[in-house]
Amino acid sequence: MPSAGDRVNLVLVRTRNPLNIGAAARAMSNFGFSHLRVVRPYDVAFREARSAVGAAHVLRRAQIYESTAEAVADCELVVGTSAIGSRQLRIPVKSLEAGAKLIRKKMLSQKVAILFGSEKSGLSSDDLDHCNFLLHVPTRGEHLSMNLGQAVAVCLYELSRGRIKVESTDKLVGASAGDLERFTQLLLEAAAASGYSRQTTTAATSEKFRRLVRRLCIQADDAGVLLGLVRQILWKLRRQLPPDSE
Amino acid sequence: MPSAGDRVNLVLVRTRNPLNIGAAARAMSNFGFSHLRVVRPYDVAFREARSAVGAAHVLRRAQIYESTAEAVADCELVVGTSAIGSRQLRIPVKSLEAGAKLIRKKMLSQKVAILFGSEKSGLSSDDLDHCNFLLHVPTRGEHLSMNLGQAVAVCLYELSRGRIKVESTDKLVGASAGDLERFTQLLLEAAAASGYSRQTTTAATSEKFRRLVRRLCIQADDAGVLLGLVRQILWKLRRQLPPDSE
Repeated sequence: MPSAGDRVNLVLVRTRNPLNIGAAARAMSNFGFSHLRVVRPYDVAFREARSAVGAAHVLRRAQIYESTAEAVADCELVVGTSAIGSRQLRIPVKSLEAGAKLIRKKMLSQKVAILFGSEKSGLSSDDLDHCNFLLHVPTRGEHLSMNLGQAVAVCLYELSRGRIKVESTDKLVGASAGDLERFTQLLLEAAAASGYSRQTTTAATSEKFRRLVRRLCIQADDAGVLLGLVRQILWKLRRQLPPDSE
Repeated sequence: MPSAGDRVNLVLVRTRNPLNIGAAARAMSNFGFSHLRVVRPYDVAFREARSAVGAAHVLRRAQIYESTAEAVADCELVVGTSAIGSRQLRIPVKSLEAGAKLIRKKMLSQKVAILFGSEKSGLSSDDLDHCNFLLHVPTRGEHLSMNLGQAVAVCLYELSRGRIKVESTDKLVGASAGDLERFTQLLLEAAAASGYSRQTTTAATSEKFRRLVRRLCIQADDAGVLLGLVRQILWKLRRQLPPDSE
């Protein structure tokens, strides 16, 4: 069954540097896109681009076109990319975030083309005439123009948002409140036994340690280790206390 | 007044290719970051990197360190980046989206370091020991490893999310309902005058055209042009009607 990414065609128009075509192909492979179309590249040796680590399959299948019109002819949504110039005022410009959201919806059922122009001059006015809207990556006003390979990577990252499951540990299990409190108590006892604080713990000291422990972000797995460590320290401290200590 | 971006230090550890340092500098400039730190680069000629279009100021000010420990010593939050491997299991891993959210909050008041390892082997186990957590860009399981310059661009894009105002036309003014209805009526008249539909417009035809016009997403500026065009066509059509036509 084809995935939504299969309906997306990345179109590189008049790209000068074969390494940039390779870099684009690598980003495509990273983010799960495989249909590359190339319009009149300056160097047709791009299929051997060294920067395409792991993306030879994308380059091998890349299709070459003589014109932008031919490259997008079968696509229902055509999106340009641009660092925005006044000449483009007649075409709607969307931020990458808003534009990608729309593309993600369309690509569920329609063929989409995303155009990137040459390193030197971007997309031409003729290229833009084929576009339904322009995507704009929000860069600094003083330095709008991105490297081609990096612009492709950023756009595909945003486009694949939510599609690739991350093996993250965002949900690492934190230590239980019980363990945190046990740890707090042991620390207080160790503080007293070591002479760091008075033997009779004041409310202020308790609060200080309790809050400190909660700020530590202790994981469940680590809590056991820490509890064991402080228990051991406490045992050792108590063995060393002179008989007449209070 | 320093901006939040001023508290972020991008740290490239043992980078092999000077062009990648240049590409990282360019992305930094694009997204408004200027503090580059370089730990033991393989080639110290990186300041002349050709890929740093528009980012010479970043390279010129880059600081060189002998160790990761020294490079991050003054930072309160240290974040690694990784394509994730099993060796990193002891460090929390956050998706780029979740991690960047946290970094954006911290960088309002704290110095932050974001580490990128060498092209060949990424960050070493020793480098990781300095990290509070790891950022992971969600790439395909079959092709996790990104090009260094592209990974930097994607991370900084996510980190600058919402900080750079986009000059977008997301709020382009659509044509008024009145103009859409005037356009619909003119189209209906033109359809009848041209013989496309019968002179007496049926409810079904009206509905068909009315809905079609609403699907067109006509901008306010364009509505005037379209209305003028159809009015002109209609005038011409009516002049050509033979005297005995109904």
